[in-house]
Amino acid sequence: MKNTNNSYWIVGKHAVEAAIKNTNREKLRLCITKETQLTHKIKNLTSEIMSREKISNLIGSSINHQGIALLVKPFRNINLIKLIENFKNKNNILIILDQITDTKNIGAIIRSAQAFSATAIICQEMNSPKENSLISKSAAGALEYIPIIYVKNISKTLQLLKENNFWSIGLDAKAKYSLKYITRKNNFFDNNIALVLGSEGKGIRKLVKKNCDMTCKINITNTLDSLNVSVALAIALYEITSSEKM
Amino acid sequence: MKNTNNSYWIVGKHAVEAAIKNTNREKLRLCITKETQLTHKIKNLTSEIMSREKISNLIGSSINHQGIALLVKPFRNINLIKLIENFKNKNNILIILDQITDTKNIGAIIRSAQAFSATAIICQEMNSPKENSLISKSAAGALEYIPIIYVKNISKTLQLLKENNFWSIGLDAKAKYSLKYITRKNNFFDNNIALVLGSEGKGIRKLVKKNCDMTCKINITNTLDSLNVSVALAIALYEITSSEKM
Repeated sequence: MKNTNNSYWIVGKHAVEAAIKNTNREKLRLCITKETQLTHKIKNLTSEIMSREKISNLIGSSINHQGIALLVKPFRNINLIKLIENFKNKNNILIILDQITDTKNIGAIIRSAQAFSATAIICQEMNSPKENSLISKSAAGALEYIPIIYVKNISKTLQLLKENNFWSIGLDAKAKYSLKYITRKNNFFDNNIALVLGSEGKGIRKLVKKNCDMTCKINITNTLDSLNVSVALAIALYEITSSEKM
Repeated sequence: MKNTNNSYWIVGKHAVEAAIKNTNREKLRLCITKETQLTHKIKNLTSEIMSREKISNLIGSSINHQGIALLVKPFRNINLIKLIENFKNKNNILIILDQITDTKNIGAIIRSAQAFSATAIICQEMNSPKENSLISKSAAGALEYIPIIYVKNISKTLQLLKENNFWSIGLDAKAKYSLKYITRKNNFFDNNIALVLGSEGKGIRKLVKKNCDMTCKINITNTLDSLNVSVALAIALYEITSSEKM
């Protein structure tokens, strides 16, 4: 059984344990050192006990595997239209990443998405890294809860979401209004929301921004250009989801 | 000029450029590749042009230096009492880190602190990593704006701050009330604030928690144990500083 394009190694304790618990995750091979303790039993798969070095050689990267690696198949791509047709309630949040390529940031974004119960993350098929060892390690298990949906075109996806009663909000450091201001003025919880984020340097592309219903900024000091994108997302999700809660 | 205990290499474009701009930073040596472009001129110090490999050898670590390294002296420890005696206004925020040792997290914490204009970060002298290459790289320049103050004892520091009109708020995933709730009930902006954070796994130590005026949590999904500590801090700073702003 080789590591082909259609499988990859999930490594690290948090990420592997979460994948083991996930019955929807197709698991191919589990390699652990003899010191590694597992909290959950894995069905229909024998653990292969081996040295740290052998695990490093198998996964073929310098990533810190913490003595545990699980070979899995990536999830199948979800059909966005089917997903939103099945939404029973409002208040769903989709996160749209425009040209974000840093795997550590994507992992941290998935973790923030899980923390505030977003429904899914949407990336453009071209130029977005696919589910891989680094993303799943940075996401620390959150990848098993938050699906990534790959679409052909972000702008068209925003139009499709608009037709399906979504409000789209772009985070933009140069926007006129603050997130605080627009959440006070709007009752988002009567809607579904698409939250759009661009890369730290470049921001959201022009055409994508044009397809957002509104843009807003998070007020920060003027000695800093921007927040880390996963931090900005966490703050936006916190603001949107907690505005009605105590 | 050797890299002694009393100096360290700041590496990476953002961190080095910020240090160059900082007139309070004592600079010893600047090494760059011939391709590296600097935005700011450095006074009283000649750039030494050398290969990437030579820079790697000099700094003696596998950290990605992006072709630029600046040997500097760490800042002198600030006297906390003198600092707070000089506070002219209220609304100062001090961030207290209880047993947080991960350098990447500390770097990200410094960045969040800068974003929301906190005054300083306080760490315990024992068991806290000192200013170093990894922290300054993760902080991406923010270390030049936000001082780290090392104290002997966190609990005693909290008592001292209390005597000096600080409110201390501990972030604790198991707290009864949410951050949103306590910021709505209290007008923090008539006070100075000490925001206390523990490590992701262990949280704040008992005695430290006992010395906080109040503890609060950030509401997140129950499938996740906790937020990343720098993300939790950013949300807390956002909530506290933006509650009065639009």
